[in-house]
Amino acid sequence: MNDVQKETAEHEVDLDKVGVKDVRYPIDVLDKENDIQHTVANISMYVDLPRHFRGTHMSRFIEILDRHRGRMTLDNIGPILTEMKEKLDAKSAHLEIAFPYFIEKTAPVSGQKSIMVYDCKLIASQGGGDHDELIVEVNVPVMSLCPCSKEISDRGAHNQRSLVTVRIKTEAFVWIEDIIDLVEGAASSDVYALLKREDEKYITEKAYDNPRFAEDMVRQIAVELENISEITWFSVETENYESIHNHSAYAAVSRQVKRS
Amino acid sequence: MNDVQKETAEHEVDLDKVGVKDVRYPIDVLDKENDIQHTVANISMYVDLPRHFRGTHMSRFIEILDRHRGRMTLDNIGPILTEMKEKLDAKSAHLEIAFPYFIEKTAPVSGQKSIMVYDCKLIASQGGGDHDELIVEVNVPVMSLCPCSKEISDRGAHNQRSLVTVRIKTEAFVWIEDIIDLVEGAASSDVYALLKREDEKYITEKAYDNPRFAEDMVRQIAVELENISEITWFSVETENYESIHNHSAYAAVSRQVKRS
Amino acid sequence: MNDVQKETAEHEVDLDKVGVKDVRYPIDVLDKENDIQHTVANISMYVDLPRHFRGTHMSRFIEILDRHRGRMTLDNIGPILTEMKEKLDAKSAHLEIAFPYFIEKTAPVSGQKSIMVYDCKLIASQGGGDHDELIVEVNVPVMSLCPCSKEISDRGAHNQRSLVTVRIKTEAFVWIEDIIDLVEGAASSDVYALLKREDEKYITEKAYDNPRFAEDMVRQIAVELENISEITWFSVETENYESIHNHSAYAAVSRQVKRS
Amino acid sequence: MNDVQKETAEHEVDLDKVGVKDVRYPIDVLDKENDIQHTVANISMYVDLPRHFRGTHMSRFIEILDRHRGRMTLDNIGPILTEMKEKLDAKSAHLEIAFPYFIEKTAPVSGQKSIMVYDCKLIASQGGGDHDELIVEVNVPVMSLCPCSKEISDRGAHNQRSLVTVRIKTEAFVWIEDIIDLVEGAASSDVYALLKREDEKYITEKAYDNPRFAEDMVRQIAVELENISEITWFSVETENYESIHNHSAYAAVSRQVKRS
Repeated sequence: MNDVQKETAEHEVDLDKVGVKDVRYPIDVLDKENDIQHTVANISMYVDLPRHFRGTHMSRFIEILDRHRGRMTLDNIGPILTEMKEKLDAKSAHLEIAFPYFIEKTAPVSGQKSIMVYDCKLIASQGGGDHDELIVEVNVPVMSLCPCSKEISDRGAHNQRSLVTVRIKTEAFVWIEDIIDLVEGAASSDVYALLKREDEKYITEKAYDNPRFAEDMVRQIAVELENISEITWFSVETENYESIHNHSAYAAVSRQVKRS
Repeated sequence: MNDVQKETAEHEVDLDKVGVKDVRYPIDVLDKENDIQHTVANISMYVDLPRHFRGTHMSRFIEILDRHRGRMTLDNIGPILTEMKEKLDAKSAHLEIAFPYFIEKTAPVSGQKSIMVYDCKLIASQGGGDHDELIVEVNVPVMSLCPCSKEISDRGAHNQRSLVTVRIKTEAFVWIEDIIDLVEGAASSDVYALLKREDEKYITEKAYDNPRFAEDMVRQIAVELENISEITWFSVETENYESIHNHSAYAAVSRQVKRS
Repeated sequence: MNDVQKETAEHEVDLDKVGVKDVRYPIDVLDKENDIQHTVANISMYVDLPRHFRGTHMSRFIEILDRHRGRMTLDNIGPILTEMKEKLDAKSAHLEIAFPYFIEKTAPVSGQKSIMVYDCKLIASQGGGDHDELIVEVNVPVMSLCPCSKEISDRGAHNQRSLVTVRIKTEAFVWIEDIIDLVEGAASSDVYALLKREDEKYITEKAYDNPRFAEDMVRQIAVELENISEITWFSVETENYESIHNHSAYAAVSRQVKRS
Repeated sequence: MNDVQKETAEHEVDLDKVGVKDVRYPIDVLDKENDIQHTVANISMYVDLPRHFRGTHMSRFIEILDRHRGRMTLDNIGPILTEMKEKLDAKSAHLEIAFPYFIEKTAPVSGQKSIMVYDCKLIASQGGGDHDELIVEVNVPVMSLCPCSKEISDRGAHNQRSLVTVRIKTEAFVWIEDIIDLVEGAASSDVYALLKREDEKYITEKAYDNPRFAEDMVRQIAVELENISEITWFSVETENYESIHNHSAYAAVSRQVKRS
């Protein structure tokens, strides 16, 4: 059969990314507590396409995915990117893996354990321009209590769920768990799937004693990320689902970290 | 050209609903303050299809929509349903129109005006079984403050945005604005797009003085809907986007109202 | 500490459903090929709340979930519902578990294996009214090719991805895999994650030889579901993401199956 | 009352963006046919926040929006950004306005008119770094027919809806309508809300005679955007909702245009 993909393209334009998007797939990731965690992912895989090829071979991306049987540990991502470049005759490869990551948390007073979910994403590139790159994204739901509302009100203070998104580039392995700890420590309180009455009292008072603007949380997280020597770039953003509005408050910063 | 739709169906099954789904369209709706409000809708239009026709004529739904130029006032919905039955040779017609509805609100202390959005839906049927039917759905974002958290804590109380969904069947016209008022009155506080410092103080203290469970809000709304004589059926549900959890608290009730 | 939930409600209204919504959780489900499949779920758990209790105890739902460690096999759902009623002092319990389900498929000509995802949902109730109830929902993406377009055109025919949603109530165990087979057999073609060139030729020609309206697919599936003796009720709907429009074509039927 | 926002921040970090996100608002935009089009928007407004201020004043963003009463024409966006900088004491301002844009299209054979929707976005910045910037984003649903499937198959060819996203930076005004024309011309066919039988035949055959990979469409659009002298930068991406798979095919390119 004729290989239409190998025909000459009508328009001589190098394409940045061609491939498959939103492939849903069961995967295994590394887990600090249990070694391996089974979860499910939404995966996108792209390579560049030089001007002289009309199309890429979409089925080869899925073949690579199947060959690795969903093992998406960090030590496996480099080999997958290399294989993408080889099998698709490309100079650069790009891989995005979004997945929910589950961690058992212990309630602060009762000690009861329950499972929290954190949406994570690995964004890995090879050969696109100067060097290889891995971005780890972690989304952490937390509680924020408004300092202004507390200050001006005779009683109470509005508070809400916030979603903090951290992205980091690193030179060495960093645990998702450690990023989560750092973010939860910068909020008015962290959140839990299961809280008994005594935990709810503790969390309520802790948040009231620890009011934080979106801006405060983002700044504290930024300062702490700068102190982790493995990190060379980061971005932090938070979206507060305001309890007094029908829109969100937002704050963001991204920064290249200068290392000597 | 051969009319494939008029062929005999291979399997003799009467279909409940066939038609077009998720047509996005600019519409006009009635507005208590300004007579007419321009907004945009997501529209679905279905008719029944008896066993002896293979397919319906999808383009006729859009022709009917275009003929009415997006005028989706309540007095126009009956004629649209009748036209759907006639043009599509059907016994029943079903129409769903989802749209954001905008209302100017006045902040409680500063008096500053701003625009709030409420997602609404009209669900209208004709001839499907016994009688015609119109369901009006209104989604109202509000603030809820947890009575338990307030009771057990020495200071503060967790609170969050909640989304209350009310659906009613009525025998006579009921303003969306009146349903919204009733729902906002059942919450710890209503929410606003714009609050100055003095409004934020007012709202914070009002919510603290007025703690409501999801259950409390749903019950109060149910009792008040029962007292509106035009309403023959309703459902109320609320989803609290808990500030201390990463999931929602939920409460719901639906009820046929017995009229003498 | 004072138990606010046990206070008397201000308004004497029995609530249909109170509980937790959108809890994300890793689960295990039964798998025809591999016995057990690890996946992740979005879970909602509700009980009824009589008029004399002000609130339910939200943390108990999560405790029940944790006690079963995410084992959501069909034989486990009855005990979970019973436990919900007991621990929450309720007369009825309701459980919804939505999850992606993965199945290895074999490409039709090349024989290459790849993994397809099907979104499923279990909706289980106990004691709400007359009897226990289990609804199994399966969402099956397929390919539909328009019979009208083929008939009137000198060459080609428009086709698109469709999503078929089947819900069944059964008196005995039915494999999700069997429902999927039946749906895929009613489409112009089934779809795959991985197709080599010879498979793509096969699928293209198969779909062209097998044109199906949304209406045709829904009717064939309805007839075949009626022939499965375990099924007492079903609904079938399909949404065709039309390649020639920016909206969907839709067809639906639901039916109580009379058994002697 | 104490102005908590003006307090000194605990951590001396300049923030890139602080403000309000996902404010839903009725707006007016310019329309090539009818001068003004009423639609609804999702709006985000941010400014930078230097290290010595603890928080921004969220209510001022909404005040600015209200003062302009939703007039989001291109000549108004510069003044809004300037006002954001002034009222919020900031050096840079950023505005994102996403909205559905409706255009009446004429069916190719029957000449029947119907309304198509295109999701658009304006992304405007002032003072963030070197210069002011406006990005116009247009999302165009089209039909793509696979050249490989056509070539290898004895009859038919798989085709599907695709969504093409174009973003441009310009030095002068460019009509959204002109970008849409250019994108629709690069596809196997454009799509319509309303097609009569003779139109469906025309579209089916046109697409069959005009097979295009995702890669082909992106390349042709890139070449044509390069020829528009007002454009200084663009990105083009397309996502094909493959009718033979449950995932998408994807192609993308972005490019700075060198002008002499």
